[in-house]
Amino acid sequence: MSRRNAFYAQSGGVTAVINASACGVLETARKHRDRIGKVLAGRNGIVGALREELIDTSLESNAAVAALRNTPAGAFGSCRHKLRSLEENRAEYERLIDVFKAHNIGYFFYNGGGDSADTCLKISKLSSELGYPLQAIHIPKTIDNDLPLTDNCPGFGSVAKYVAISTREAGADVASMCDSSTKVFILEVMGRHAGWIAGAAGLAAEKEGDPPHIILFPEIAFDEAKFLARVKRCVSRYGHCVVVASEGTRYANGEFLAQSERRDAFGHTQLGGVAPTLAGMIQTEHGYKYHWALADYLQRSARHIASRTDLEQAYAVGAAGVEMALAGKNAVMPTIIRGTGKRYSWRIGEAPLESVANVEKTMPRRYISRDGFGITAEAKDYFAPLIMGEDSPPYVRGLPRYANLKKQLVPKRLKKPFKI
Amino acid sequence: MSRRNAFYAQSGGVTAVINASACGVLETARKHRDRIGKVLAGRNGIVGALREELIDTSLESNAAVAALRNTPAGAFGSCRHKLRSLEENRAEYERLIDVFKAHNIGYFFYNGGGDSADTCLKISKLSSELGYPLQAIHIPKTIDNDLPLTDNCPGFGSVAKYVAISTREAGADVASMCDSSTKVFILEVMGRHAGWIAGAAGLAAEKEGDPPHIILFPEIAFDEAKFLARVKRCVSRYGHCVVVASEGTRYANGEFLAQSERRDAFGHTQLGGVAPTLAGMIQTEHGYKYHWALADYLQRSARHIASRTDLEQAYAVGAAGVEMALAGKNAVMPTIIRGTGKRYSWRIGEAPLESVANVEKTMPRRYISRDGFGITAEAKDYFAPLIMGEDSPPYVRGLPRYANLKKQLVPKRLKKPFKI
Repeated sequence: MSRRNAFYAQSGGVTAVINASACGVLETARKHRDRIGKVLAGRNGIVGALREELIDTSLESNAAVAALRNTPAGAFGSCRHKLRSLEENRAEYERLIDVFKAHNIGYFFYNGGGDSADTCLKISKLSSELGYPLQAIHIPKTIDNDLPLTDNCPGFGSVAKYVAISTREAGADVASMCDSSTKVFILEVMGRHAGWIAGAAGLAAEKEGDPPHIILFPEIAFDEAKFLARVKRCVSRYGHCVVVASEGTRYANGEFLAQSERRDAFGHTQLGGVAPTLAGMIQTEHGYKYHWALADYLQRSARHIASRTDLEQAYAVGAAGVEMALAGKNAVMPTIIRGTGKRYSWRIGEAPLESVANVEKTMPRRYISRDGFGITAEAKDYFAPLIMGEDSPPYVRGLPRYANLKKQLVPKRLKKPFKI
Repeated sequence: MSRRNAFYAQSGGVTAVINASACGVLETARKHRDRIGKVLAGRNGIVGALREELIDTSLESNAAVAALRNTPAGAFGSCRHKLRSLEENRAEYERLIDVFKAHNIGYFFYNGGGDSADTCLKISKLSSELGYPLQAIHIPKTIDNDLPLTDNCPGFGSVAKYVAISTREAGADVASMCDSSTKVFILEVMGRHAGWIAGAAGLAAEKEGDPPHIILFPEIAFDEAKFLARVKRCVSRYGHCVVVASEGTRYANGEFLAQSERRDAFGHTQLGGVAPTLAGMIQTEHGYKYHWALADYLQRSARHIASRTDLEQAYAVGAAGVEMALAGKNAVMPTIIRGTGKRYSWRIGEAPLESVANVEKTMPRRYISRDGFGITAEAKDYFAPLIMGEDSPPYVRGLPRYANLKKQLVPKRLKKPFKI
């Protein structure tokens, strides 16, 4: 087979380790120069392909590529552009194929979550329908940990570690203050439909009374009276109460707390108001002094405290994606398979995109304690290895030094611009 | 002089390194067993003395004491109980002296900010008035960096490092997303009356276009039109805009952007709501998609990313406090004096509490750029060494291991309980 170029793009919300996957792709491709020519990266994700804005990664030094492993967020830019169905928007898919043809792209590596797995599958199908040879590989990435068929998702272990450490640290803070001041601390974390991130905070607790005292999951209908009673019990018992709440916490009728009427003090329409809503309830019912934090992007970009396990897995799925492409695979995704031994081990597996796309994996009920406010021992066994190990980025003058890329675009070859 | 016991208490909002000061006090006192008997620590700060709840630190192992250096928040508990003037509340001061007498306490180490410096001074005065020999030493601690006569305050360097790193990391995140999604990110940080913490975020920027693009200081009157114009200019120029806003950001008339009715025990308004207020303005005026984070306790408890310089200084002021007491000093505070050489150096100085108490040091105007939205090169020179160096706590199973103290109380010797 003649040498063909590859296209790599980052998709959706970025993570602390998605660039480690990029590093895995680029370094592995560089080992196979006989088969893979240039790796062109989409500037700002798949829209970079639509606009024919392709970053020539061959101009980046080996050192710059290696530094991607230590760099959070999306080094080439990401996007939230979702390609709709082939019927609805065939023009976009055809444009992609045109761009791929123009740049002799034979390998398509799409690094994202559930939506991008679906896009990747569609592109694979269309290329085959149009008779254009393309191997489309999806490289998993999502802090939400909601992809099926993989034990866990690269990106999740690091946010889990961030949330568990932050819970332990802020928990120590409120424990210091609670006698005469703050009694309740609420940390609002990401996870719109799945409680994996909130659940991981449970790792901070090692013995009775340790924070977090209450975890709120999207999977468990929020019961205000039960919640307020539990807060009171914690304050009576431990002097304070630490709550970790998923942004997706909702009532039995499906309504998000963040979209409820009580949220009006901070009137905004995006999610991210669970903590002040809960604080308001607690204030009204119990009058406790509270503090709350909204970690938002901090939690998913915190490369400084990334999990080494997560980093290694993120790199490995990138590298495996390239190996799979070279082995002739198409419409597949590398997965992480957990070993069955007592000591944690993992290896790379493979899943067909047909089974991955648009399936969302939420927390199994058996991972959530019977009262709905915590995690079980089985959940702890699941979470614990994913946050293992530290891997500090290099520091210069007290700050982490992140990759600095040239990001030079290759000249356009298509005449007409494309309107997105 | 016969051997006398010491009393140590933590006061006010805790920090990532206040326990390093405790470690400095305890380890130094242990070196002088001929002069200092037991160090008794106030359970939950000064209220522990009022209630005669005194933790016997002599029961803690050397290893547990050493681990304090790696442990955030207040290991013995802190409080926001402010002793009022001697005239208003002489009973509390007299009670303290009674407790000190009952436990043969000759050294009083009070580890806090401006309010506790004032308390420490009053106790020193009263003990002298009552003819009770007591050496009262104030050990500086405040993330707010607002104490006078010291180059900087232990606790500040670590929160500065946290905020600078978080700004760089979240800034990389929004830069990845801004083409098709989030264009503005706002990080709300602590600093009620002084913009030191917000200002330190400016260290994240190394070249034109780096985040933060806008810093809002309590020292600069907020001008909505000017702010919104600057946000727009950043988005046009860089594609995105990262704002770091002090919780104390206020209008020219003194009104806080996040005015709240709640007040803490010191009578300070409890703030937290600048970020959503700014986000609302931006949304209305420009319609940009935004995200915001409220770091709250996370920023001041983040021992995992503490500044080594800060840790060393926090330890040193604790150790120096004990040395000063042994040298016969009273009503003084160890300070940090910056060397004048090009390479950063520091040494311990000494300030009389008369000159420290109730003086608040805000950001000098020359540290803030002319447009009021950033920091000057002189400010960078000031901030930069304070965040230098890392000093990871030990990790066990992916999480930092913090000190675990016995915190056993000594038997009470006074008959009557004291109502606070």
